[in-house]
Amino acid sequence: MAYLNENYLKLQSGYLFPEVGRRVREFCEANPKAAKRLIRCGIGDVTEPLPRAAVEAMKGAVDELGHHETFHGYGPEHGYEFLRSAIAQNDYRDRNVEVADDEIFISDGSKCDCGYVLDILGDQNKVALPDPVYPVYVDTNVMAGHTGPSRKDGSYEGILYLACTAENNFVPDPPREHVDLVYLCFPNNPTGAVASRVQLSRWVDYVREHDALLLFDAAYEAYISEADIPHSIFEVPDARECAIELRSFSKNGGFTGVRCGFTVLPKSVLARTENGRRLPLHLLWQRRWSTKSNSVSYPVQRGAEALYSQEGRKQVRALIAHYMGNAKLLRDAVADAGLEAFGGVNAPYIWVKTSEGLTSWQMFDRMLRELNVVITPGAGFGAQGEGYFRISAFNSRANAEEVARRLRDLQ
Amino acid sequence: MAYLNENYLKLQSGYLFPEVGRRVREFCEANPKAAKRLIRCGIGDVTEPLPRAAVEAMKGAVDELGHHETFHGYGPEHGYEFLRSAIAQNDYRDRNVEVADDEIFISDGSKCDCGYVLDILGDQNKVALPDPVYPVYVDTNVMAGHTGPSRKDGSYEGILYLACTAENNFVPDPPREHVDLVYLCFPNNPTGAVASRVQLSRWVDYVREHDALLLFDAAYEAYISEADIPHSIFEVPDARECAIELRSFSKNGGFTGVRCGFTVLPKSVLARTENGRRLPLHLLWQRRWSTKSNSVSYPVQRGAEALYSQEGRKQVRALIAHYMGNAKLLRDAVADAGLEAFGGVNAPYIWVKTSEGLTSWQMFDRMLRELNVVITPGAGFGAQGEGYFRISAFNSRANAEEVARRLRDLQ
Repeated sequence: MAYLNENYLKLQSGYLFPEVGRRVREFCEANPKAAKRLIRCGIGDVTEPLPRAAVEAMKGAVDELGHHETFHGYGPEHGYEFLRSAIAQNDYRDRNVEVADDEIFISDGSKCDCGYVLDILGDQNKVALPDPVYPVYVDTNVMAGHTGPSRKDGSYEGILYLACTAENNFVPDPPREHVDLVYLCFPNNPTGAVASRVQLSRWVDYVREHDALLLFDAAYEAYISEADIPHSIFEVPDARECAIELRSFSKNGGFTGVRCGFTVLPKSVLARTENGRRLPLHLLWQRRWSTKSNSVSYPVQRGAEALYSQEGRKQVRALIAHYMGNAKLLRDAVADAGLEAFGGVNAPYIWVKTSEGLTSWQMFDRMLRELNVVITPGAGFGAQGEGYFRISAFNSRANAEEVARRLRDLQ
Repeated sequence: MAYLNENYLKLQSGYLFPEVGRRVREFCEANPKAAKRLIRCGIGDVTEPLPRAAVEAMKGAVDELGHHETFHGYGPEHGYEFLRSAIAQNDYRDRNVEVADDEIFISDGSKCDCGYVLDILGDQNKVALPDPVYPVYVDTNVMAGHTGPSRKDGSYEGILYLACTAENNFVPDPPREHVDLVYLCFPNNPTGAVASRVQLSRWVDYVREHDALLLFDAAYEAYISEADIPHSIFEVPDARECAIELRSFSKNGGFTGVRCGFTVLPKSVLARTENGRRLPLHLLWQRRWSTKSNSVSYPVQRGAEALYSQEGRKQVRALIAHYMGNAKLLRDAVADAGLEAFGGVNAPYIWVKTSEGLTSWQMFDRMLRELNVVITPGAGFGAQGEGYFRISAFNSRANAEEVARRLRDLQ
């Protein structure tokens, strides 16, 4: 009989969001009246329509496919040149960050890239992950066999967890021990924290010293409002020698249902074989895409390109301003309710301490029952998330205002 | 320093189509006049515009995303119910094949699914592959570490190759030895061969007897013209216990640039752990998609759904008739040129013996130089492909007619 990948059997029962979904469903079935006033501030999913520029570009591209003279079949496996070049120019070179067009790889989203990237890495790597953390970093490493079994608190043996706490402002210091592969995400999901240039430089120094690799998830960079915070790891000197950056159009262009993101993999990033040979990871990544993919839907790539047009940029800025207006409302309301809150200034997430003595799932149930508001329990993001919950600012203004009103009644 | 996946270093230098591309580019640069009359019958890429029904559905879906009331964010990770159900009903239940909606998993294409499927399988599986074969089956197994190093003829140690030759009509018999995982593709790429019900039953018997798993690639099922040939492996009794089917909208709906396909994984397919526990692969596959993907672009899924509408079905039939008209022209012309040809009746590919004494790359160069026609050398698909070449019927009628004319001059 065919063997299955036994690493899957180590996975904790539910991915966080399905469990949230289950509890909400059961509550709504039992409380049909409360169900009608339910507001979801849980999953980080956008709510506002796509920017007009993207809509027009996608429709135009679909029309092209409908006519003989302008039909496109298979696209280049690493993404169309028009999009790779728009990204490299606008997101990097225009901000004085050196990135070549062919160091950009178009994908169907950052969540997917998290898993894909492990395809080209060895199984011997010692991995460090923040705690709390986006569960996909953890689970894809479990599936790839990079961990031991899980412990009672949901953590896995074999992973080095980097505690992100109120004491370190949710930005961990590099560890004393050696690791080969580090995941960082700033602006952070779920804490909303950002790392300063000095803090990121300390990480790049560590990674360089240990000849390690840094996976930097910058999916939320568009939400940075403070001038000094780096938008890309490549703003930090020497990061081109040791980092891969993940970016997404989900949260800036509202592409969660359209599906497009990208990785930046500089040709100068090396990795090693067991016997010490050093090779550019770029070669392997390129081969991965050629062999395993036919890139992303042509109309989707045209839609992503349109986000960089003058109109598109203006529309993206308006979307960000909308969600960050929500974040301010919610953050203020949480404070008025007497709860301690973090984030929400450079990120669409507010990270809140639970009311005295409640676990984060108890707080989840309380918010659901008393306010009919869905939040995400911090414990779902890791052991250090216990005692916190995440409120997402992805909502309509009316909903955000209503949640703010209800929060003030929490006392 | 981070370790890389050393299995990538076992891969033969070029994936077939990049090497074809390189030779064509060099020829065109050296022969600008001939370059102008170049006709490509190489890569199996569609040339005709998308069916109108798909165009309208995709544009409508993009419009939905552009308005507040009809906006969609993240879709279900296994695909929208509307598409899973349209597929299960039209492609299976309407043809008296039992498949449940939740046994359908929507993906961004069959090429991608080939790689994804290995995520949930163990590394101990002994793999059998046809020869010649779609190179992606081989290369994804190499990348996953399921093979030894490559040999001189391009094959890899550790794989059992199933020779597909003129003697067995390009349909191999099950082997005598045990394997855990078998890949089959019918209608076949590259040979254009199809397997009868009896032949497929023999394979299902083998797979059941050996408690193995069958990956059945039916990407070209829409091209079957003969009544008795099964369109799905699930038409064969007991296949629901041991097979996964891969399907694509690339070649029926012309979606090579739109990107959509699916796998069918019956809940009754089991696989084992090292210590003999048996579990449904469906559970692991579901988990893979929840954790590693956010499914396929919403407008793309609406476009795929539209292929099942009355209009859509008519338009797909017209596309198939167009390409199969080309196939007939090309097959006849090849025969007139005195070459021995196979396929082209239930598949858009014609598999041709090279002229006396020529290797398939020599034949490639000859066709390029003398006829200015690009074909695919059989050796690129495996050792048994040596001495053959593939002509693709994916072209405009005018091009197919012109290639047919030139082929008659080959003498």
